[in-house]
Amino acid sequence: MTPATRAECVALDAADPLAPFREEFVLPEGVVYLDGNSLGALPRSTPGRVADMIEREWGRDLIRSWNDAGWWDKPRTLGAKVAPLVGAAADEVVVGDGTSANLFKTLVAALRMSDRSVVLGEAGNFPTDLYVAEGAAALTGATQRRVDPDGPALARDLERGDVAVLLLSHVDYRSGTLRDMPGITRLAHEHGALVVWDLCHSAGAVPIDLSGSGADFAVGCTYKYLNAGPGAPAFLYAARRHHAVADQPLSGWHGHARPFDFTADYEPAEGVSRFLSGSQPLVADAALEASLDVWARADMGLVRAKSLAMTDLFLERAAQAGISSITPAEHARRGSQVALVQPEEGAGYPIVQALIARGVIGDFRAPDVMRFGFTPLYLRYADVWDAAQALLEVVETGEWRQERFARRGQVT
Amino acid sequence: MTPATRAECVALDAADPLAPFREEFVLPEGVVYLDGNSLGALPRSTPGRVADMIEREWGRDLIRSWNDAGWWDKPRTLGAKVAPLVGAAADEVVVGDGTSANLFKTLVAALRMSDRSVVLGEAGNFPTDLYVAEGAAALTGATQRRVDPDGPALARDLERGDVAVLLLSHVDYRSGTLRDMPGITRLAHEHGALVVWDLCHSAGAVPIDLSGSGADFAVGCTYKYLNAGPGAPAFLYAARRHHAVADQPLSGWHGHARPFDFTADYEPAEGVSRFLSGSQPLVADAALEASLDVWARADMGLVRAKSLAMTDLFLERAAQAGISSITPAEHARRGSQVALVQPEEGAGYPIVQALIARGVIGDFRAPDVMRFGFTPLYLRYADVWDAAQALLEVVETGEWRQERFARRGQVT
Repeated sequence: MTPATRAECVALDAADPLAPFREEFVLPEGVVYLDGNSLGALPRSTPGRVADMIEREWGRDLIRSWNDAGWWDKPRTLGAKVAPLVGAAADEVVVGDGTSANLFKTLVAALRMSDRSVVLGEAGNFPTDLYVAEGAAALTGATQRRVDPDGPALARDLERGDVAVLLLSHVDYRSGTLRDMPGITRLAHEHGALVVWDLCHSAGAVPIDLSGSGADFAVGCTYKYLNAGPGAPAFLYAARRHHAVADQPLSGWHGHARPFDFTADYEPAEGVSRFLSGSQPLVADAALEASLDVWARADMGLVRAKSLAMTDLFLERAAQAGISSITPAEHARRGSQVALVQPEEGAGYPIVQALIARGVIGDFRAPDVMRFGFTPLYLRYADVWDAAQALLEVVETGEWRQERFARRGQVT
Repeated sequence: MTPATRAECVALDAADPLAPFREEFVLPEGVVYLDGNSLGALPRSTPGRVADMIEREWGRDLIRSWNDAGWWDKPRTLGAKVAPLVGAAADEVVVGDGTSANLFKTLVAALRMSDRSVVLGEAGNFPTDLYVAEGAAALTGATQRRVDPDGPALARDLERGDVAVLLLSHVDYRSGTLRDMPGITRLAHEHGALVVWDLCHSAGAVPIDLSGSGADFAVGCTYKYLNAGPGAPAFLYAARRHHAVADQPLSGWHGHARPFDFTADYEPAEGVSRFLSGSQPLVADAALEASLDVWARADMGLVRAKSLAMTDLFLERAAQAGISSITPAEHARRGSQVALVQPEEGAGYPIVQALIARGVIGDFRAPDVMRFGFTPLYLRYADVWDAAQALLEVVETGEWRQERFARRGQVT
């Protein structure tokens, strides 16, 4: 039952088993932060963990920390901590590099496993996915093709029988549409294609079962719902059945079978370590570890239930104000964000700015989408109510038409 | 004049114009740290700078820091701070990703600028350079060939006229040999080859003049002499004359001409920004910025003079103990490290361990090289004297033969 009053929201918060997590995050006074789908909030434990890593592991213990503090194995030990959040075994995930580089590695590896040469992407995917697929295709002689993954065109395209690898976002970065990972993976496999899943907008947002879905490869970032800090290292998943044959092109020494032999020729490590390249930023890894240790105590079933209740509430209140949504109403097809569209052209940006001026932080994505992310670990139902109330007032009073909210320059 | 007594070393320290820099670094009690060529020491300003970035820029200001704290431009603003250390213009360097990824980008870009297809590398280069060249060659249909860059074979190989790109380390990671960047670059250009310089072991160690040398591309890490922390982000240099045509394969959205238009197709940015891929770890960038701000006040001429005096001293003392060196005696061919070799097989590792037990930290590189790095910003002449004295005692007394120093397992 969606709460109908602010008092009902307060009551839900009082009974919320996830409520104690809010105290584990730093949140500015007077702000309702609905942009955790872009940059997650700061865990309270992070500054201390990073300071300890810098002052003790680096400053005091210096190079011995490569062994004693586990620096060398960090891509694997952090990968093992990401694994339960994405439904993978501990030895199927590594942390390192960025999402773009990891997309490149998995796409080229998948192309090399196939005798076909089409990379099938989605027309509206996040640009880096499109651009990296373009780059990987250009380098390997493959062809890039794009399709609407949420309609019948996907199945029809796969039926052509020439798709080597399908690259999809699990949750669409604009609309918040959640894709059927097991169903689409099965469909792709039936038609002889491998699948690379981009989990940037779903890791920490929805339950993920890579193993149960039979997924081949996946990548994702850790700075959105996983709260690891701006630009924090990404992760890469490779199904264990592919480890022996996967051949990725960024063959640096951390991916070597015996890196400390300093041999002249490359021999990939067994297991998912072969997807590593070079040294990783350990200071950033420390922040990631702090946030993953918070996540290790969170029940993803509770997170999902609260996320759906919150997006239900926000969607209902927006609908009452006549604001339409491009986020699916159906729970099974919804991630943890809401994308609203005002019919009046150009209204999206100033509405978001007017909300920010009121302390409700969402963001804007071209051409006219207002995005609001819902992060059950640190948001309260009362916050969602207040944010929706602010939205209603901004729209109904025409507050957003003030000159100070007009668009200028770059929009991040 | 090389000092002949510890008292003379103490006198040199008292007159050393770089001496005040030592106070800007955290150095453990009782340690002489001769491994700054592997992992630089911690600048005192780093913990505060990182804490401020985490607590204020991320925790308090959240996503607005992408604009207000200059996060989006960090690859360029940090690149501009690296530029004077490598003799480049501010708009020719970006910071981001790791050395391996940047090697891959520059190698493929160089191969695409050439109608030839041989990558010429050096036989004894650091493994990741060899492995990445192997990976880039495999993906582009190029051939990898290797040569001794310090002998006549290099010129003979270039004369074959089929080399697209020459990949060399400016300073050899084992022997510490410094290569003639202007001379080799000119030679390569005369034979129609482009050059990618790996500056990992020279940035912050020796004066570098990429522009004056006519270099095409360069990459380097920031965690050795530049003191930015373990695995800190790498840098990439591309000569301005190549910006319009360089086509690198990791085409992520940060390298796009108009990233916030979210267009479907990739169009590379003008300038060196086209070498960027995805979001960078801003927490690690904060540590890098702190260390570069120390370097901005250091006179590289003084650094070089002190480095040569220190390596002279250490080499002379080692020679007195009958320990031979593979580091060039000639100043013009020496970086800022000394590589010693004990004639007795297997002696290198336990000698390094025995020194570490005495608080003198160097490292060991297979098969039998003892490496000692000299970092003029935080080392004193008296430290070098003491380290040499410890080495002499360990060797002369046979202390290193104790069972507790024997080799076991992985050696980082």
